[in-house]
Amino acid sequence: MYLEAGLLTRRSVRKFVKNHVISDDNIRDLLKIAMYAPSGCNKQPWEFIVVNDRSLCDKISDIHPYAKFLRDASLAVVVCGNEQQECAKGHWITDTSAAIENLLLACHGLGLGACWCGIYPDAALMKTFSSMLNLPDYIKPNALVVIGYPLQMPSSVQDRFREDKIHYNQW
Amino acid sequence: MYLEAGLLTRRSVRKFVKNHVISDDNIRDLLKIAMYAPSGCNKQPWEFIVVNDRSLCDKISDIHPYAKFLRDASLAVVVCGNEQQECAKGHWITDTSAAIENLLLACHGLGLGACWCGIYPDAALMKTFSSMLNLPDYIKPNALVVIGYPLQMPSSVQDRFREDKIHYNQW
Repeated sequence: MYLEAGLLTRRSVRKFVKNHVISDDNIRDLLKIAMYAPSGCNKQPWEFIVVNDRSLCDKISDIHPYAKFLRDASLAVVVCGNEQQECAKGHWITDTSAAIENLLLACHGLGLGACWCGIYPDAALMKTFSSMLNLPDYIKPNALVVIGYPLQMPSSVQDRFREDKIHYNQW
Repeated sequence: MYLEAGLLTRRSVRKFVKNHVISDDNIRDLLKIAMYAPSGCNKQPWEFIVVNDRSLCDKISDIHPYAKFLRDASLAVVVCGNEQQECAKGHWITDTSAAIENLLLACHGLGLGACWCGIYPDAALMKTFSSMLNLPDYIKPNALVVIGYPLQMPSSVQDRFREDKIHYNQW
């Protein structure tokens, strides 16, 4: 099962080699993989704001309640949904979440570390990011994905398997 | 980049070898990988209803507007969010969407095919599934994932890379 290793070893990474540079080619590769996520009616209603301006990174690290470590990271990607392109109202949330998971796995595959810092469903935080990034009202920020070169590889993942979360044919 | 192949070649599969049996061990493996998705505050607010009763599969294939092919598939998993376990209200949607993407990739890695058939955000469809599966009011169905053995491997994925969806530091 060739994918198992990556899927079972990905972890949230929050400690980075300070401001390690990620090449433009790598950024493209990562976002390409995000764009290969499934989406309702294959509408691909996502938009990616790459934040690699250091002063903007620092500003965001002050504003987002759980992203202080962006100060040391390489960059961040704000993954947004485009309400003008979704299959049906509200689909952008699930579609962009699948794209974010692909992005996290792509980072892991490339030896980078990443952390999903939620923006949705916090209405105040969504408004703050929309204003800061000049997003039109139909572009909705789902999450800030902080990416960098891991200061150390995280230790093995805790066992997350929970038999009691599996049900058969009814609750 | 060892993960690239799987992430770029996964496709929605809707044609299956009729009712191919998937072993209980494989079902466990697939759901384990789904459970290794990231979640807000690592709350893992997901629940999985495995639907492998044939009469229930057929009933669902009649009820869901885009899952007729469940009649030929091996089984389906209704991936649900648990509102009593999420990090903050509404987090179950993004958390379970990441778990669904992991599940789809796990199927692909195992040589199976799968298709994400949305239930959320269709309120009427959510109600129908909640009633059919006896879900308590705090358990919310996100999607029906139909899984089976592909009748033929889908052809290569269309190029989904879209340069115009990448923005730098602002919209």
